[in-house]
Amino acid sequence: MIIVLKPSVTPEQVIGFTTKLTSDYGVNVNRWDGVHSTVLGLIGDTTQVDIEYIEAQDIVESVRRVQEPYKKANRKFHPENTVIKINDEVSIGDGSLHIMAGPCSVESEEQIVQIAKDVKKSGATLLRGGAFKPRTSPYAFQGLKSEGLDLLKAARKATGLPIVTEIMRTSHIDMFENIDIIQVGARNMQNFELLKELGKTDKPILLKRGLSATIEEWLMSAEYIMAGGNSKVMLCERGIRTYETYTRNTLDVSAIPIIKKLSHLPVIVDPSHASGKSWLVEPLAMAAVAAGADGLIIEVHNDPPHALSDGAQSLTPEKFDKVAKKVFALKEALSNT
Amino acid sequence: MIIVLKPSVTPEQVIGFTTKLTSDYGVNVNRWDGVHSTVLGLIGDTTQVDIEYIEAQDIVESVRRVQEPYKKANRKFHPENTVIKINDEVSIGDGSLHIMAGPCSVESEEQIVQIAKDVKKSGATLLRGGAFKPRTSPYAFQGLKSEGLDLLKAARKATGLPIVTEIMRTSHIDMFENIDIIQVGARNMQNFELLKELGKTDKPILLKRGLSATIEEWLMSAEYIMAGGNSKVMLCERGIRTYETYTRNTLDVSAIPIIKKLSHLPVIVDPSHASGKSWLVEPLAMAAVAAGADGLIIEVHNDPPHALSDGAQSLTPEKFDKVAKKVFALKEALSNT
Amino acid sequence: MIIVLKPSVTPEQVIGFTTKLTSDYGVNVNRWDGVHSTVLGLIGDTTQVDIEYIEAQDIVESVRRVQEPYKKANRKFHPENTVIKINDEVSIGDGSLHIMAGPCSVESEEQIVQIAKDVKKSGATLLRGGAFKPRTSPYAFQGLKSEGLDLLKAARKATGLPIVTEIMRTSHIDMFENIDIIQVGARNMQNFELLKELGKTDKPILLKRGLSATIEEWLMSAEYIMAGGNSKVMLCERGIRTYETYTRNTLDVSAIPIIKKLSHLPVIVDPSHASGKSWLVEPLAMAAVAAGADGLIIEVHNDPPHALSDGAQSLTPEKFDKVAKKVFALKEALSNT
Amino acid sequence: MIIVLKPSVTPEQVIGFTTKLTSDYGVNVNRWDGVHSTVLGLIGDTTQVDIEYIEAQDIVESVRRVQEPYKKANRKFHPENTVIKINDEVSIGDGSLHIMAGPCSVESEEQIVQIAKDVKKSGATLLRGGAFKPRTSPYAFQGLKSEGLDLLKAARKATGLPIVTEIMRTSHIDMFENIDIIQVGARNMQNFELLKELGKTDKPILLKRGLSATIEEWLMSAEYIMAGGNSKVMLCERGIRTYETYTRNTLDVSAIPIIKKLSHLPVIVDPSHASGKSWLVEPLAMAAVAAGADGLIIEVHNDPPHALSDGAQSLTPEKFDKVAKKVFALKEALSNT
Repeated sequence: MIIVLKPSVTPEQVIGFTTKLTSDYGVNVNRWDGVHSTVLGLIGDTTQVDIEYIEAQDIVESVRRVQEPYKKANRKFHPENTVIKINDEVSIGDGSLHIMAGPCSVESEEQIVQIAKDVKKSGATLLRGGAFKPRTSPYAFQGLKSEGLDLLKAARKATGLPIVTEIMRTSHIDMFENIDIIQVGARNMQNFELLKELGKTDKPILLKRGLSATIEEWLMSAEYIMAGGNSKVMLCERGIRTYETYTRNTLDVSAIPIIKKLSHLPVIVDPSHASGKSWLVEPLAMAAVAAGADGLIIEVHNDPPHALSDGAQSLTPEKFDKVAKKVFALKEALSNT
Repeated sequence: MIIVLKPSVTPEQVIGFTTKLTSDYGVNVNRWDGVHSTVLGLIGDTTQVDIEYIEAQDIVESVRRVQEPYKKANRKFHPENTVIKINDEVSIGDGSLHIMAGPCSVESEEQIVQIAKDVKKSGATLLRGGAFKPRTSPYAFQGLKSEGLDLLKAARKATGLPIVTEIMRTSHIDMFENIDIIQVGARNMQNFELLKELGKTDKPILLKRGLSATIEEWLMSAEYIMAGGNSKVMLCERGIRTYETYTRNTLDVSAIPIIKKLSHLPVIVDPSHASGKSWLVEPLAMAAVAAGADGLIIEVHNDPPHALSDGAQSLTPEKFDKVAKKVFALKEALSNT
Repeated sequence: MIIVLKPSVTPEQVIGFTTKLTSDYGVNVNRWDGVHSTVLGLIGDTTQVDIEYIEAQDIVESVRRVQEPYKKANRKFHPENTVIKINDEVSIGDGSLHIMAGPCSVESEEQIVQIAKDVKKSGATLLRGGAFKPRTSPYAFQGLKSEGLDLLKAARKATGLPIVTEIMRTSHIDMFENIDIIQVGARNMQNFELLKELGKTDKPILLKRGLSATIEEWLMSAEYIMAGGNSKVMLCERGIRTYETYTRNTLDVSAIPIIKKLSHLPVIVDPSHASGKSWLVEPLAMAAVAAGADGLIIEVHNDPPHALSDGAQSLTPEKFDKVAKKVFALKEALSNT
Repeated sequence: MIIVLKPSVTPEQVIGFTTKLTSDYGVNVNRWDGVHSTVLGLIGDTTQVDIEYIEAQDIVESVRRVQEPYKKANRKFHPENTVIKINDEVSIGDGSLHIMAGPCSVESEEQIVQIAKDVKKSGATLLRGGAFKPRTSPYAFQGLKSEGLDLLKAARKATGLPIVTEIMRTSHIDMFENIDIIQVGARNMQNFELLKELGKTDKPILLKRGLSATIEEWLMSAEYIMAGGNSKVMLCERGIRTYETYTRNTLDVSAIPIIKKLSHLPVIVDPSHASGKSWLVEPLAMAAVAAGADGLIIEVHNDPPHALSDGAQSLTPEKFDKVAKKVFALKEALSNT
């Protein structure tokens, strides 16, 4: 950690501050006097150093970490890839490619079982579906809730596919006991109380990136879960908020190799939410796999007779089948290189 | 609501879709055929119309609301300003200016009581202080928690100032029973489960704007609370995330007059978090008041003998006194015009 | 074009405005009265309609285009891909993949000729190199200027590779007479005077996306060039400015399929500038090709004996060779699917 | 300047690099070895150090300036405010408040003379008006060009108001000989060739902030002009591009006190372009003045009998008169405090 002090600092203040840093955090402090400013360098384990406290000091101009503030999520201290084993067939992070597919919302047993069968046939190895739905409007459909969880389990029973679904509240953790992967949505990425409680479980967690979270903040949220003792965390890139309005979000494809470099955790990409447009799912899925993603999470919706739609960002099972074929072919070609 | 259909749509699809809209939502549908596209206009109450469902239709190119999606927070349906009465002296939204001041974190009884006395003397009419602290790092100090709440109450007892503090978890609501204003932090602005529960209380809520929330999303979060029956919501602008790195966030001063136009709810501005720099608090507070804010929330930290700091974004009581004087003088000058 | 009028509009104003629109722009106007607002729909060719003029009307609440504002760059009016033939070997946009490679700045004849030979051996079909350099600081090296152009020509002579280099000023157009592709940098994307002059030439133009340009603004800049008569425009995605600070810019990989859908112009991707980090060039290049890019532009810098560096975002010829091999193998695998 | 080296660096590389820095830039280099990294601190004048060159070194992890990269625009080296005297009545930056008012585009002599008279009566001390108009679409009205300049001069003659108008092209500089203040638009903020040529003149320059320019980049563009010898630069904040879509841009009100701290140059604020909505001009103008702006630039358009509009972001002379009164009253109240 490098601390630049203000030009106005007095020698006494520097000594006082240095002494405090040494005693509070057990770090060594190196000092260098420039023409206009004094710079301090902290040597040792600085993850415990409260950067906001340092910034808050009146004599401090700016602070910069050299070392990352996350430890358990850090590849430096855990060089090998984390592999998360869901069942005998599904191990995420081991170099294979997994697709989690299914509808935005679980609507009925017939729907979810049929989609589960369809996506399994196309090669998906996990079933996704929303039971509790975070909606911008209080007047919009909020999901089938616990009934939705039951329907997901029925679909799992019918197909053997492990299930992935979103949690929205700490008090629901018990209800998710029998769910295979618990998803934390983008809007809850910094719901630290929820993260802490999930850290006490041993459930695999799919942690979506917040709408405007930096990569470091995202890794710190993973660290919250891991600090509690649960190291089964997957990071899901789902697009970030930018000024561009053509797509709902902007897929940050660079996040994939960056996470792979900074961390040992698996990276999943959500091309459906990243773009909000079904015709963009294929090219974005291809880009994600080419950039090194461990998995994809894709919205698939079958077309009940009375519905007009396959969803703005959802694929029909037929289109999904085509996308899955291309994506797996790409993965194979990449593996052969 | 205006729906632009894709050029490829067939007349049968248009009729089927129109019929569905009419029967599902009880709206009238107006149709207009352009050279390249067909446009539908929905007439009636469209707040119940699920815009994501509409967007999801295969035949839809784009959708746009003409009417705002919020009702209870909407000035159109509630032309008069909402005034939130906290006690006999403090009514927020009635044209007067209120300052909520206090430390980022409550540290000790001595500290919080002293600051409360200081800020009261300078004209603050509410005391703020963090007991539960949302921190990016799991290793950072997380606040004094329930003890912090007790210390705030002690400070209230000593000064008479109503207290404002942040809640982080639904299960804590009972613990906040005796708090005057409950703050929802930026990271929880779309923690919909928390908003729903707060909607069932009758506590005044200070709803901070999310890091990258649009004004409409922010108003929809207020709507969540109000839909539950609690209409005592204050909106707090605290800076948004942009590409600029000089300040921690970018204060969106335009949000003040925009909220005043779109909604009847009071607007509070947080110049301390918006900038992250104490020397910017004064000019931003002045700008906020000149733009029409109903209140300010400002970090003030006293300087215990052994501390080196007045905080990167905190003011000392002396500096706060100076800022408060200028701000109240400005308010008076504006009132006289 | 759909125009939503303010609730306060009078019937006379609507009639006056409608008449004006019809007479000024030769469009038909369709009118629809909602509960709270009146909406006008314009039918006919609206590319000539000045949207800012419409927005400026006191009675107008908001305006929205249904039709894109660009014509010559629009795939709707030109369904086939534009193919830009540079020489007998290089046709950009015909389904093949081209790599433009070379140093950020041309430094010496020895350097540029050597790099040209190296990148040609690895499969690059065009040589890039900066002669006029846009620099944030007036005190930084501004390029070898016209001498740099001469050195590029020498490298072209030695290798046969066509050359790509950036123009910064209208008065330099004559100097670029013998350059194969003229690049317009991100900072000049809306230097409309330069675009207009380039529209009068018949040179292939590589138009970089502005730092925070929307896709529509970018296509409108292409339209500026094309409106002047020059239809040889390639669009170059080079990353956009976002809140994320880990990378210099955020590569908007979605822009590739979006441009391919909206326009017939070729898309080139610059993974070097998008990330600012050489180790990210490979994964981003792979992602770009998988998403459908027609070409890549990559910084390559050889390592003269006295230099310590291969550049923060530049590859050495050895690393470039490896990236090129992977990228061409990916392209072939995609073609075989 | 602080340079963090990669963990993999060898002692020989550090020595080689240090020697090079010392000899190339005449700076002293301080070295500090941490547990995971080596850090170099450069002491001396680092404005000449090419930060991109440093970043480009293979052994460099990251670089950070301690000293600002601008010199002539830097308050540290020029503590007193720059005052730009336009004529006997108008000195910008001396603590007084000046309003530049006028239409977006000059349309006719009658129009511009009438507006000039109106705004003068309301207290404006400068006349603004566009003769050369940067337009997103090549099909939109591009201004009256040199005729527009003549009409501005006629309005100046009729009222005595100095005139401000935008330049778009280096070759037009001669044509602007007799203009009082030359405006550089947001899209040309990094048109470095134009900045260099303006640096050779002695004209006052109004430099608008680029759409997504950081404060440092903006100051570096001022530095370009000043490095050429022209120190009469005013900085104009006109809103930045963010994710928020309610306003055209987001006024960065914090930029005002930040520029005043970092630089000695005057700051002008453009509330009309920042918001794109005329009803926001008043609150934003008030906020700007309260935050310390030296001047405002406001769009005013009179209402010729056949026009329906006062402009989405333009005020009528009547509304402008009201805004000007409030703004000057605020300025006076602030001066009395």
